[in-house]
Amino acid sequence: MNYREILTDIYETIKNEENKGQVTSFIPELSGVNPEHFGVFFKTVNNDEFGFGSFNDKFSIQSIAKVASLSLAYKILGKRMWKRIGVEPSGTAFNSLVQLEADKGIPRNPFINAGAIVVCDILISQLDNPQQDFLSFMRYISDNPSIKFSPKIAKSEKSTGFRNIALCNFIKSFGNIKNDSEEVLDFYFNLCSIEMSCREISNCFLFLANQGRKVSDNKQIINKSRTKRINAIMQTCGLYDESGEFTFKVGLPGKSGIGGGILAIHPNKHTIVVWSPKLNSKGNSYRGMKFLELFTTKTSSIF
Amino acid sequence: MNYREILTDIYETIKNEENKGQVTSFIPELSGVNPEHFGVFFKTVNNDEFGFGSFNDKFSIQSIAKVASLSLAYKILGKRMWKRIGVEPSGTAFNSLVQLEADKGIPRNPFINAGAIVVCDILISQLDNPQQDFLSFMRYISDNPSIKFSPKIAKSEKSTGFRNIALCNFIKSFGNIKNDSEEVLDFYFNLCSIEMSCREISNCFLFLANQGRKVSDNKQIINKSRTKRINAIMQTCGLYDESGEFTFKVGLPGKSGIGGGILAIHPNKHTIVVWSPKLNSKGNSYRGMKFLELFTTKTSSIF
Amino acid sequence: MNYREILTDIYETIKNEENKGQVTSFIPELSGVNPEHFGVFFKTVNNDEFGFGSFNDKFSIQSIAKVASLSLAYKILGKRMWKRIGVEPSGTAFNSLVQLEADKGIPRNPFINAGAIVVCDILISQLDNPQQDFLSFMRYISDNPSIKFSPKIAKSEKSTGFRNIALCNFIKSFGNIKNDSEEVLDFYFNLCSIEMSCREISNCFLFLANQGRKVSDNKQIINKSRTKRINAIMQTCGLYDESGEFTFKVGLPGKSGIGGGILAIHPNKHTIVVWSPKLNSKGNSYRGMKFLELFTTKTSSIF
Amino acid sequence: MNYREILTDIYETIKNEENKGQVTSFIPELSGVNPEHFGVFFKTVNNDEFGFGSFNDKFSIQSIAKVASLSLAYKILGKRMWKRIGVEPSGTAFNSLVQLEADKGIPRNPFINAGAIVVCDILISQLDNPQQDFLSFMRYISDNPSIKFSPKIAKSEKSTGFRNIALCNFIKSFGNIKNDSEEVLDFYFNLCSIEMSCREISNCFLFLANQGRKVSDNKQIINKSRTKRINAIMQTCGLYDESGEFTFKVGLPGKSGIGGGILAIHPNKHTIVVWSPKLNSKGNSYRGMKFLELFTTKTSSIF
Repeated sequence: MNYREILTDIYETIKNEENKGQVTSFIPELSGVNPEHFGVFFKTVNNDEFGFGSFNDKFSIQSIAKVASLSLAYKILGKRMWKRIGVEPSGTAFNSLVQLEADKGIPRNPFINAGAIVVCDILISQLDNPQQDFLSFMRYISDNPSIKFSPKIAKSEKSTGFRNIALCNFIKSFGNIKNDSEEVLDFYFNLCSIEMSCREISNCFLFLANQGRKVSDNKQIINKSRTKRINAIMQTCGLYDESGEFTFKVGLPGKSGIGGGILAIHPNKHTIVVWSPKLNSKGNSYRGMKFLELFTTKTSSIF
Repeated sequence: MNYREILTDIYETIKNEENKGQVTSFIPELSGVNPEHFGVFFKTVNNDEFGFGSFNDKFSIQSIAKVASLSLAYKILGKRMWKRIGVEPSGTAFNSLVQLEADKGIPRNPFINAGAIVVCDILISQLDNPQQDFLSFMRYISDNPSIKFSPKIAKSEKSTGFRNIALCNFIKSFGNIKNDSEEVLDFYFNLCSIEMSCREISNCFLFLANQGRKVSDNKQIINKSRTKRINAIMQTCGLYDESGEFTFKVGLPGKSGIGGGILAIHPNKHTIVVWSPKLNSKGNSYRGMKFLELFTTKTSSIF
Repeated sequence: MNYREILTDIYETIKNEENKGQVTSFIPELSGVNPEHFGVFFKTVNNDEFGFGSFNDKFSIQSIAKVASLSLAYKILGKRMWKRIGVEPSGTAFNSLVQLEADKGIPRNPFINAGAIVVCDILISQLDNPQQDFLSFMRYISDNPSIKFSPKIAKSEKSTGFRNIALCNFIKSFGNIKNDSEEVLDFYFNLCSIEMSCREISNCFLFLANQGRKVSDNKQIINKSRTKRINAIMQTCGLYDESGEFTFKVGLPGKSGIGGGILAIHPNKHTIVVWSPKLNSKGNSYRGMKFLELFTTKTSSIF
Repeated sequence: MNYREILTDIYETIKNEENKGQVTSFIPELSGVNPEHFGVFFKTVNNDEFGFGSFNDKFSIQSIAKVASLSLAYKILGKRMWKRIGVEPSGTAFNSLVQLEADKGIPRNPFINAGAIVVCDILISQLDNPQQDFLSFMRYISDNPSIKFSPKIAKSEKSTGFRNIALCNFIKSFGNIKNDSEEVLDFYFNLCSIEMSCREISNCFLFLANQGRKVSDNKQIINKSRTKRINAIMQTCGLYDESGEFTFKVGLPGKSGIGGGILAIHPNKHTIVVWSPKLNSKGNSYRGMKFLELFTTKTSSIF
């Protein structure tokens, strides 16, 4: 059985099962999304690709954008960035603030909110026009000039983003935010507001499955060693408090967002992106988790 | 350059560098070991193998034995065991007790002490002669009838193992230890007391690089899916609070012990075991970490 | 209105209201007690005294005994004991283990279990026949030779006391338990097993309302300054996580036990003991809290 | 020996001893204060009063102002305010954020920063001109129209007050801040910026030693029962993580500020205010603690 058949099979199976969980209520603007959207896009480093369902519909990629901001910051700063952010999983959400306190403002990894906020701060210090330059980077790695922030979603996030404001100021109290909190958070909320389709996300991050090279023109975006390390962090930290479970069941580096998207990377092989807005209790797409578990069970994982 | 040359090269490089860290002082009996021991053993699923330095000297494998107890319990109980132990990394050591409390006595994963103690409890409930049956299992997967507990080391561990006694009774207060605490801890201390050489460890766990089959006779020890999952847990939880760092730098499933050994698995390829008793501040072998980082940088990781 | 009238009035009022809460289920032997017992005993330093309801019935005094063990240890060691135990409230129960870890095995105060266990350890080191000498002390301060341990209750506590075993060993792992854990816990469980009536408790601790002197013969049990300090610790730490609430509502130093007793001290005036087995969610007697709140509202507190 | 002699004696003793600790570095504007200032003011409910040293010099009262904001909020809201703030001590500073999380945004008590911020939020909701009305209240209870905010100090606090911004937004994320964070924090920073002398503070809070009545004109500021409860909260929570120690050593309700002031209340007797800018490791005035301990040892405490 080939990939297309396997994917078709799993897509149909899951589509016919009950769709559990809840659409996020954290961000007012996202709470109105149709919970029955279900899209999958698969693309290999040899340019084979298949899409299923709503794979061309744009949705709010939310934390998946943190893979791009990490890539850009790592490309610029190199290993110096690990003085300001760790690479360890965070245990439970519950402990995030304690750990920031115990670790004196050094977030555990770049994918928890605290870490992604520090990444924004790094980019602001390093780039001439931080938000515009970041967008240019995303457009370049995606061959997709249409990528843009969604002011409506960013505004919606800001209106209820008190915990992120708290995190940013808490880190700043330890000296690990160098720029103005408002500027850092403005970038952060914009970053999370980007809307892309499964196909676009899959294309955008295909370089992580291709040793750091863009598949379309073979240009090196980030070197091979750093590519492996970004994948490694996605493996241990990419799915919030469910990263261990995701590694256990799916066995691929991945990154989820509360918009219901999950990106998974099989190094040297392919990317696969699933989108279904209903989230499980850990904030990860219910159908996305299920789809990817079945997929690697029927094909292969890295373990 | 082939594996032998690469390994030789790295071995010589590290041997000539300063040997940092401290031999464990937790267990009196281990504190007297010669800190300059340095052994490496590498074995592929095709039976190629190379050893360097003290690779034939036995040392206390400590927590590495937890890979064997987990394998046996998982083989017997299957997924039912995940009702009693999680598969998430634990964040910091600091939080372990809080998390046990928040999670009502369910340890975060089978490799932290709390989880390994629950695995012992499971084996006691499931086996007729728990300790003897466990030894038989280890001897069988190793083709090595000489494996045995070290009463001297076990006694030494018990004499200072108050924190483990605390953990076991704390879990029991939540009802997640079913047998008598003393019996469970006696098994646990014995488990950790086993002494093996790099070569013996490498042989013993080669089935995890071979889809669950023993290389010597191709017999299935544990099925393919469970094998992948054990590797996945080693990836996210195998090196205490440094599991993220190990994934980031080395990129292979691994398990360390405070005796100074580290086992790493490259699925479908090989196992590699390094032993050097001096530990870094996280309790992992200083030279072991360094060796494996250089090794996967010059060869390949799974990411 | 005099004390007798006020007390009578409150007793009748509460007796006619619904009796809420749950009898403790922690200790099997206590769970069978009649939940409708309701006793009060009041005694002034001038030997005026009144009793209501079941004030002559013996019940398990549990943690109230910790006031006696603290008094004896403080009498012997003086301020040296504060190197091994603090005098700060513990915040929430939830944090007790974290705080023991952060404070390297120094319990926050002598009334949380951890602290009371260290007090037992101190007494074992200081006394020739620790348990017998402690009983003699209690009998002496009470003029009551009938006080004794209840082997049945102690055994019952031991059978489910896994958390206390955990605490004791956890503290021992930091070096702050000097004697054998089993001996310390045996003393601790015996201490908590003592059975006394409201009248007996009231007599026993009347010296704390009398500047450290026994009222019957004016003998100094513990000096005036230490007496004030024991009262101060009762004020901030005597009612578990509800110590602030008790200070706020009742305004007297107090100590509760999960047998449903509460002892309160009005320095220079009187002691009052209430017993009613149903506990609120914090583990303190529902009617006891209510009685004492009404009592100091109608009479006076120290604030 | 009368009060004047005792106070003179203690003042001289301490003045001649080494002055330990550090002036606060949290607030730039305060770090330049002369560390050798040392003032004491004592005033009874019968209008006897004595002052020593710099008792007429104004200093930044900081957290002592929280006693006034609590009094005003409690006067207005009554017991309804305990739905939004607790009355329990907080354990350690370390846990403050964990507890806010565990308690879903309900601060443990009105004297930790989190609680005082919620009190500001309550006053903003309840008062027409919150900041002005609060000043009027303080001037009224003090018979002192000169009390005012210090814009210079408030600005200085704001410039480094990232942790307070974090706290306020964290609480707001739980819904327990109703007004705009900036407005709440602006009030909070102003509140803490007030400058008063020992004499002025002593006069201002004398009503707490006088069953809620102003001594100058016998007007009831807050009723007797609430007065006792404010004193009770000062007893268990008034000196940060050293509240237990203060109760233990001094035995009076008290409130300290990082400007180096400590206010203590002896109900029905007097107030006493000590000011010396050098702080111990818990953030309380080194000489202030010492002075009050000697004072109650030579006179009396409430225990």
